[in-house]
Amino acid sequence: MTRPHRIAALALTALGACRGAPAAVRPEPVRNATPPARVVAESAPADWREVPADELLVMELGDGGRVVIQLAPAFAPVHVANVRALARGGGWARASVYRVQDNYVTQWGNGGGGGGAPAAPPAGVVEQPPAEFERTLDGVAPRPLAYADPYAAATGHWEGWPVAYDPRARAAWIPHCYGTVAAARGNTPSTGSGSELYAVIGHAPRQLDRNLAVVGRVLDGMAHLSARPRGSGNLGFYDRARGETPQPIVRVRLASDVPEAERPRYEVMRTDGAAFAAYLAGSANRHDAFFAQPAGGVDVCNARVPTRPRPAAR
Amino acid sequence: MTRPHRIAALALTALGACRGAPAAVRPEPVRNATPPARVVAESAPADWREVPADELLVMELGDGGRVVIQLAPAFAPVHVANVRALARGGGWARASVYRVQDNYVTQWGNGGGGGGAPAAPPAGVVEQPPAEFERTLDGVAPRPLAYADPYAAATGHWEGWPVAYDPRARAAWIPHCYGTVAAARGNTPSTGSGSELYAVIGHAPRQLDRNLAVVGRVLDGMAHLSARPRGSGNLGFYDRARGETPQPIVRVRLASDVPEAERPRYEVMRTDGAAFAAYLAGSANRHDAFFAQPAGGVDVCNARVPTRPRPAAR
Repeated sequence: MTRPHRIAALALTALGACRGAPAAVRPEPVRNATPPARVVAESAPADWREVPADELLVMELGDGGRVVIQLAPAFAPVHVANVRALARGGGWARASVYRVQDNYVTQWGNGGGGGGAPAAPPAGVVEQPPAEFERTLDGVAPRPLAYADPYAAATGHWEGWPVAYDPRARAAWIPHCYGTVAAARGNTPSTGSGSELYAVIGHAPRQLDRNLAVVGRVLDGMAHLSARPRGSGNLGFYDRARGETPQPIVRVRLASDVPEAERPRYEVMRTDGAAFAAYLAGSANRHDAFFAQPAGGVDVCNARVPTRPRPAAR
Repeated sequence: MTRPHRIAALALTALGACRGAPAAVRPEPVRNATPPARVVAESAPADWREVPADELLVMELGDGGRVVIQLAPAFAPVHVANVRALARGGGWARASVYRVQDNYVTQWGNGGGGGGAPAAPPAGVVEQPPAEFERTLDGVAPRPLAYADPYAAATGHWEGWPVAYDPRARAAWIPHCYGTVAAARGNTPSTGSGSELYAVIGHAPRQLDRNLAVVGRVLDGMAHLSARPRGSGNLGFYDRARGETPQPIVRVRLASDVPEAERPRYEVMRTDGAAFAAYLAGSANRHDAFFAQPAGGVDVCNARVPTRPRPAAR
């Protein structure tokens, strides 16, 4: 090995040690990237994958709002099984949205007082699941995002999900991005059963990554969680003494339990294809009549995977 | 220079080339960092700096909400001068909050239709200010944040503000974090006069950095912007045809123009001191009865500079 090669190898090793930069060399900014909205508009049906009906949770609120959540069984199988058992077994029959903390989370379930929780959770609910705060990287093949991340050794996308991962620890997890849904819990060692869930409604609180079980993400109806009045109690809990009333949850079903004629259907852009690659390039290098200066980078929570109701005409 | 030193120097150069890592070596995770809330609670009066009254903009809404904004004249002097002239000259006499786009921005000013803008802007308003999308790094001495940033060469804090910067281009700017307030504009080359303002209400849309003039940040009343109903029109504009009504803005004043007895006062934690260093360490390494796994990093928009109403008893 000649000297220059040895030095280059050392330099690359050093770059590899730079946490959050999975690629040794950050890509050059792209000057004429296609705007991400146009990539989506011009995508082909084959660029999308339909979400299986038993991975869609449909939550109806007392004010008429409907929130659709995609479940992530590949990341938190026991928690997701709990969520399904709760939905099917009437485990949220008297549930409500009872906590809204600005720039943080909206939380719902049986913990809001008032109606009160069922006497016992439905059959099949594991009350203290394992700590599914991360999963093994084995079997996960992310498309790496080429920009440094302040939190994780690496970030990327896999099977339609944003992922953060640590190749050395062989661990992967869904980051706490806007719209991420996870199981609330008490102090360690509680792992949360999934009966109390929250969605992120502000800047990604990535400090929660690897500390709670992520069960999915909001696909539709996000404003029914994000635009709610904030609670004035500690941590944003609604304070009934101040007239703050939790929002009743009327019904929670898996889409697979909804009659087919009214079943909601959603698609997520495939994250291993050319369309998503173009979408990422466009997101990192915004270029249109508005943007004068592309950033040349994007973070895993801002490079949001495109999702949509399934187009009617195919 | 001996060989090992040369190699080490080369490796450091390579690390320096890793955009977003101003420190060559990422700090080791701290295992017993003080929780950030405790750092704030235990801080001394000298750890804080009062915001000058002419850098506080007080906006009162028709529904009784009050939003307090800290202005950033060091970053966008002409735009901030415009904001002051608009506040003092009745430039927002018939203004409203007319746009709320989920996970993006809430926007207000004279552009909402209905009442209509004044015939002419008040005296002193520069209608096409310079593109104050960034400033020179000269005169700015950030405390560097030691974690990689996906967007900027470096991030940190300076005089109570989050900053992103590029040492090679000698440029610095306030990033688009949750609560950042900036001047809306039309397509390039418009720079926005400041008569239309927006605040970030979701995950930091950092693609806007260096593309718009940041004039400040929300210090108080953020929920009056973030918890509003989303607009169903294009880009979240309220659609009057669908019964969506912009929220009237009743009054906008600089705190320096509010009678002293009712003048709001705010403090921002000094970002060059030991308290803020402890706050950053605690934010990057959450450690308490709840957190089991500290992230070992934090991003510039999640390491929010503590601010507070000025304590009454000093």
